[in-house]
Parts: sequence; structure tokens; C-alpha cells
Amino acid sequence: MAEPEQPRSREEVQQQLKEVQELLARHKLVEGLVHRQDMPRHDLVENLVHKQHVGELSRRLDALHPADIADLLETLPLEERLFIWELVRAERDGEILLEVSDAVRESLIETMAPEELRAAAEQLDADELADLAPDLPEAVMEDVYLSLDLEERAQLRAAMSYPEDAVGALMEFEMVTVREDVTLEVVLRYLRRFEALPDHTDQLFVIDREEKLRGVLPINSLLINDPEAEVASVMISDPLSLRPDDKANEAASAFERYDLVSAPVVTSDGRLMGRVTVADVVDFIREDADAEILGNAGLREEEDIFAPVLDSVRNRWAWLAINLITAFVASRVIGIFEGSIEKLVALAALMPIVAGIGGNSGNQTITMIVRAMAMGEISHEGAMRLLKKETGVALFNGIVWGGLLGVAAWLLYGGWQLGVVMTAATTLNLLLAAAMGVFIPMAMQRFGRDPALGSSVLITACTDSGGFFIFLGLATLFLL
Amino acid sequence: MAEPEQPRSREEVQQQLKEVQELLARHKLVEGLVHRQDMPRHDLVENLVHKQHVGELSRRLDALHPADIADLLETLPLEERLFIWELVRAERDGEILLEVSDAVRESLIETMAPEELRAAAEQLDADELADLAPDLPEAVMEDVYLSLDLEERAQLRAAMSYPEDAVGALMEFEMVTVREDVTLEVVLRYLRRFEALPDHTDQLFVIDREEKLRGVLPINSLLINDPEAEVASVMISDPLSLRPDDKANEAASAFERYDLVSAPVVTSDGRLMGRVTVADVVDFIREDADAEILGNAGLREEEDIFAPVLDSVRNRWAWLAINLITAFVASRVIGIFEGSIEKLVALAALMPIVAGIGGNSGNQTITMIVRAMAMGEISHEGAMRLLKKETGVALFNGIVWGGLLGVAAWLLYGGWQLGVVMTAATTLNLLLAAAMGVFIPMAMQRFGRDPALGSSVLITACTDSGGFFIFLGLATLFLL
Repeated sequence: MAEPEQPRSREEVQQQLKEVQELLARHKLVEGLVHRQDMPRHDLVENLVHKQHVGELSRRLDALHPADIADLLETLPLEERLFIWELVRAERDGEILLEVSDAVRESLIETMAPEELRAAAEQLDADELADLAPDLPEAVMEDVYLSLDLEERAQLRAAMSYPEDAVGALMEFEMVTVREDVTLEVVLRYLRRFEALPDHTDQLFVIDREEKLRGVLPINSLLINDPEAEVASVMISDPLSLRPDDKANEAASAFERYDLVSAPVVTSDGRLMGRVTVADVVDFIREDADAEILGNAGLREEEDIFAPVLDSVRNRWAWLAINLITAFVASRVIGIFEGSIEKLVALAALMPIVAGIGGNSGNQTITMIVRAMAMGEISHEGAMRLLKKETGVALFNGIVWGGLLGVAAWLLYGGWQLGVVMTAATTLNLLLAAAMGVFIPMAMQRFGRDPALGSSVLITACTDSGGFFIFLGLATLFLL
Repeated sequence: MAEPEQPRSREEVQQQLKEVQELLARHKLVEGLVHRQDMPRHDLVENLVHKQHVGELSRRLDALHPADIADLLETLPLEERLFIWELVRAERDGEILLEVSDAVRESLIETMAPEELRAAAEQLDADELADLAPDLPEAVMEDVYLSLDLEERAQLRAAMSYPEDAVGALMEFEMVTVREDVTLEVVLRYLRRFEALPDHTDQLFVIDREEKLRGVLPINSLLINDPEAEVASVMISDPLSLRPDDKANEAASAFERYDLVSAPVVTSDGRLMGRVTVADVVDFIREDADAEILGNAGLREEEDIFAPVLDSVRNRWAWLAINLITAFVASRVIGIFEGSIEKLVALAALMPIVAGIGGNSGNQTITMIVRAMAMGEISHEGAMRLLKKETGVALFNGIVWGGLLGVAAWLLYGGWQLGVVMTAATTLNLLLAAAMGVFIPMAMQRFGRDPALGSSVLITACTDSGGFFIFLGLATLFLL
């Protein structure tokens, strides 16, 4: 990877971004940026060429860090995005493609010719290439693969063979290795031969002739110890190491706990394969949290906010379909009791309250438990204790809030019996919510599914149908 | 801070944790751990003393990293937690208190005598102390403050003067500074005088006599360049720097973009105050994401999963109260149309579907937009475009899903008019959801509130009341 521009102070970057956006806006005013996507891109660009501005824009873009350009591309609607993309120097395409979100990457790749893509891909390291590969046309990937040397091909195959949530997918191959029987002085001289050390080199990896990891030599130890000392006497001989098939979130939690900057990845027979750096981990943590937040709302992936309507519909339809089914079931539960509602229409007005409060309370329970599970805080015997606590909370809330609702129902509609039914139904639905709130994520984990995704739909389905059934059922039994 | 134990390989740590837990379990079996919290803690511990196991447990605990002990404490119910806490060597108390979650920290601090707390606090750096300070009794903090030297007092005051979401709160003061007019050789000799360098020392800070930041010297440059070179000729003279009152999430995004390990924090007149490291940033990112996920379910903070019922009730009640109010409003909307429902009871069964699908769709829109806002992807003119897109999606979904629902209603209840009303109401409620889904987070941002918190409650309130009103209103107009 080419050395990225040294980031300047934050204000400066924001100033630069603003200037680029202003230039772009002025450009649009001057040129009247056409809003027709069917216009061939080349014509569009030629239409737009206004030498002075374009030259100025190019120069500004060159001064920006790839991550900042990626950001800029993400904030722009399609035509302006492609216009800027055209202005970026071709040798920076690869790094920028790595930085943009999936949706935006897709939109950029779509417009690139195979030879442009090949050139962009060939600037990348094997591990970076592996991240980009799924989005590249097959023919391009084949060409790129053939252009690699044998070692890089092996690395690319290795990196691509691990699922996205495995350490192998976070791993990179650039690192510095040394032998244990040399002095620190020799290591220092060896390092001076480098043009630049790989980013995040906070430790060197000590390997033997069979490439087995013997230890790590923190750069800090290298600096503070006597240059005459041998590596073996200074290195940490039993360092934390990862396996390529470890779960990425476990690796992330190790980085978090131990405040790591890099960690070696070794095969099961102890050979050094690569390393994971905190930069990869930060990206992973962010993406993981994003996926959870998006998943909670039934969004399958980050959406390009300027995506066409149909792309958005596709991203969101599954959740709406599931919701429709569960709402339909709840509706049929109400259907059973239509006779009761006809006799006492107040039931229709009160029933959504019972269902709603159960859904909210259940979602609180589930959120708590899913988080505790993710941190490994729930043992098997802990589950029973949790259930006890959650039902305790539900009982308390049922009596307090349910009681309040009961009084409200009584005042609104007269008849204390309706109030009692309201209180009882609320309490029972909160208890159902607590039980399902503990049970659903446990069951999902047992069946090997991610409890963070979909638990919320399931609990709402239970508390809706359950709430209607309990309330209307009790009312039918005791009021009619 | 004392040097933490070097983390070993992951399996080893998990093995160790398991052994500790087994020891604890065995201990419980042997001793019959009493489940009475009112028993004075000292008696409880004395009751439990079974020399052999306890000695073994202590030794295992000593071998664990503070973060692992923190984890263990979090997974244990209160009595066992306090038992383990008693066994931890006192000089490690401070580091462990920093690592545990807020709720668990509170439970530990409650049981500690003032002198124990003072001793624990005195082991910490000023910036760490600032994190712990809000949880410590005032008298303890006063004593600790008086025990600090003048520089540390100034640092503590500085660290505590910034709000939690400012860079100042993430900042630490331990760092290595050098002058620009010396050679790298001199720097190397200077570093060799250190016992240990501060964690995450990936760059040295170059300052002048007035402590103004002149540049940074990456350790990697120090290593690869000729030792005869001067610092000034090798350093990066215009590095990225943060201000103590910058927003922490902007700093985090800079770390993410530029893959930083550390960054200097300077005052407005350019003096070096401290630095932020990626370890602080990783913790911040995790906590920020957690707060968003918890906030979405109306949980005010991470709950100790073994907390007493009343603590949980307190953590969750606000959300339930708000929900109750919005549900009550929705119920009153239904109340207006009780006459219509009495005449056509099918309305009662169908209305929750209209409200539910609106709520789901609205939450999708809001999640998307809140995330785009957080990444700064939404400009002012972008908002109109977004609204157009979201209403497009809503219209599409309304016609497709609403049409489906209309057919279902027709088949279930006969009468195509009911089907048409169902379709129209679903479409209108989806449009309402789209409009409010764009409007609510924009308005919250405009009024300086975090759009991630509470947007979801507001949209559900709109789509519930709105959905009932639209559906029952249309039905009353056209069917009765």
C-alpha cells in the first residue's frame, strides 16, 4: 500500500473537506450539473469540465487522506460522487475502495472498466485484496490472482478461506520477524535497512527456522534494553497469540482487555501466519456494533443513503414481511374475541396498552441479556437466577403500572371489574415478557444463532399475541 | 500504574478462569456458601475460610490479568464476588476497579473501608483517578487529592473538568517528550534510561521550551533513520492533534480513519497537555455503541445482571412510563371511534396491523438516518432528497404490503370496501412513518439532542396513534 498522506490537524481536514464541497457546489452552479443518470458517464464528465475548477478540485483531493476522500464520496449523491471519483488519481483507487462503505463501493465499482479495477486491485496487499475480492468481477480477480507471486497467492487464498467473523479474515501478512539468537544491536541495524516499518509495528515476532513463534520482542523493550543483550533474554517467550479460526469478537475482546496494538496469529502447530492490528479490531468493533443496531431494526446492511428506492426496498422487505405475519397472527387472536369486543367495546381501546407495555418490557429484558451473553457473563446456573430476578421486576412493574392502568380504566369506563382485569392482564403479560425475554436469547444461543438478531421481533410477537389473548381472555371469562 | 501481568495465550486464560470458577464451586460445596446478605461480611468470609482452597484461589487470582479478574467479578453473584474481591491483593484493587462495569464497581466500593479505598486510589495515575473519582466517597477523594504532588493535582483537576464525551476525559498524561535540536542517537540513549515506556508509545512528542508541540517523532522513524540525524529533520512537523474540548466521538473517528495508536492533545495556544491512546478510544467506541443499544431499549445504563430487583426497576422505569403515556394516548384515539368499532368489530382486529407495520417501517427509516447523521453524511440539502426517497419506499411498500393486507381483509370479512380502506390506511401510515422518520432525528439534532436516544419511542408513538386514527377515521368516513 502506498504511504497514506499524514493526517493534518482536525480543523484543517474539515476545512479542506468544506473547500472541496464548496468547489463542487460552485462547479454545479457554473456548469449546471445534469441530473440524468442515463447519460453516459464520459459525456457527463466532459460536459462538466471547467478547467480551472477541476484542476483546483484535483489538487485538493490529492491532499486528502484516502479515508477522508471515502467519507466525501459517501456524503455525495451518485452523479457528484462519480464526478469526484473520476478526479481521484488512479493509484489511490485501491485504498479508497477499501475505505468506503459496501453500498458506495458497489456504486463505484460498477462504473469502472476491468483494466481500471485490475490496476486498483494490484496496488493492494493480499489481505486487503481479500476484503475487496467479493465485490470484484470474477474475470478481474483471475487476472489479479495470476499477477501475484506464489507467496502472495498463498496469502490471498488463506485470507479468503476464513469466514468474515474469524480472526483469519482480520489478519494481515506484513510484519517484521527476527531470530532469538541475535543481539538487540543487530535487530536495530536490521530495522535501519527498512524504508518504512509496517503500520502498528509495536512488537517484532521472534521465530525459529521452522517459522514457529518463539516469542515477541516489544519495540519498547528493544529501545530501553542494552543493545548487547540477546533477543532471547529480552523477548516475552509466551505471548498472547491468536489462531486464524478463533472468533473475531473474542480477539477483539482480547485487544480491549489487554490494550493490545498487535497480536501474532499462529497455526495449530505453532507456525507464525500473520498478525492482527488494533486498526483492524477497531473497524471490526464498529462494524459489529453497527450490524447489531441495524439488525435490531431489520436492516440487512448499511444503506447508501442515496440508493435508489428499489435497493432500499430490497434491504428492508424481509423484516416487514415477518412483522406482517406476526401482526396478522395477533389480529387473528383478536378475531377470536370479536364477540366479546362487540359486547364491551372498551376492550378494543384498552388492549393495545397491555400489548405495548409487555413488548417494551420484554425488549428491555432481552437487550440486557443479549449484552450479558456477549460478554460471557451468563453461566448455566446463572440463567435460573436471572429468570427469578426478571420475574421479580415484572411482578413489581405489573402491580405498580398495571394498578395505575386499572384505576385509569375504572375511571374512564366505570366498573371496577374492568380495572381488575386490566391490572391482572398487564401483570401477566409482563411476566410472559420476562420469561420469554430470558428464554428466547438462551434458546437462540443454544441453536447456534446470534441472539442479537431477531430476538426483538420474536419477543414483540409473543407479547402482542399474548397480551391480546390474556386481556381479552380474562375479560371474556370475568366480565361477560 | 503497576505493570500488568503479560497476557498469556487465550486458551490459557480461559483455562485459568475455568479453574478459578471450579475452585470457587468446590469451595461452595465444601463450605456451604451462606446466602444471607445481612450477615456481616467479615463473619461471612471467616466462615468460608478453608485454608487450602483459599490459598490456591489466591495464587490463581494473582496470575490473572486485572481485566480478567474484572470479568470474573462481573460474572459472579454478589456474595461470591465479594469473597473473590477479598482475596485479590490490595495493590491490585485500583486497576481492577477501573476495569469493572459501573454497577459492579459500585457494589465493590460499597464494601470497602475508607483506608482501603484510599490505598487503591493512590496507586492510580491522575487520569485514571479522574475516572474513578465520581464513585469514591468525598472524604476519600479529599485525602487522595492532598497526597498528590502539585503537577498531579493540576492533572487531576484538568481531567475532571471535561465532560465525559470530551477528549479531555479520554486524555492521559504519561508520555515521552523530546527536543527537536538533538540527534536520534541522543533520543535513543535517553529512552534507554527508562524502566519502561508508557503503554502505546508509538511516537514521541517534540516540544519546545514553552512546552509547545513542535511535531511528533514516530518510533518507527526513530528506528529506521540514521542515528546522526536531528529530530527536527525526521519528525512530522504538522501532526494531527486534538483539543481537550473536542468531542470524543470525533477523536474516535480520527483514530478509526487514520489508524492511529496515539495522538497529542494540545491547548488552544499550542501547548502539549497530554495524549489519547487507541486503548482509550476502543473503550470509548465500545461504550458509545453500548449506550446506543441500551438507549434504544430505554435502559439508562449497563445493569449488573445480579443487581437487586429494585435497582433494575429504577434503571428501566422511565421508558415504561413514557411508553405508558404514549399507549394511553393511542388508546384514547381508539376511544374516539368506539362507535365505529361497535358497528364493525372487524376494525378492532385489523387496526393493530396498520399501527404495527408503520412502527416497524418508521424505525427502519430512523435507524438509517441516525447512523448517516452520526457519520456526518447528511447535509442540509440532502434532507429533502432523503425525504423523497423514503416516501418513495413507503409508497412502494404501502401498495405492495397494503394491497396484500387489503386482499386478506376482504377474504376474511367479505366486502371489498374494507379491503380498500385497509390498503389506503396502511399506505398513509407508512407515508407518515417515512416523514416522521426523517423529521424526528433532524429536529432532535437541531435542538442539540442525541438523535440516537428516544427517536424510536417517538416514532412508535406517532405511528400507533396515527395508524389508529387513519384507519378508524377512513373506516368511519367510507364504511359506516
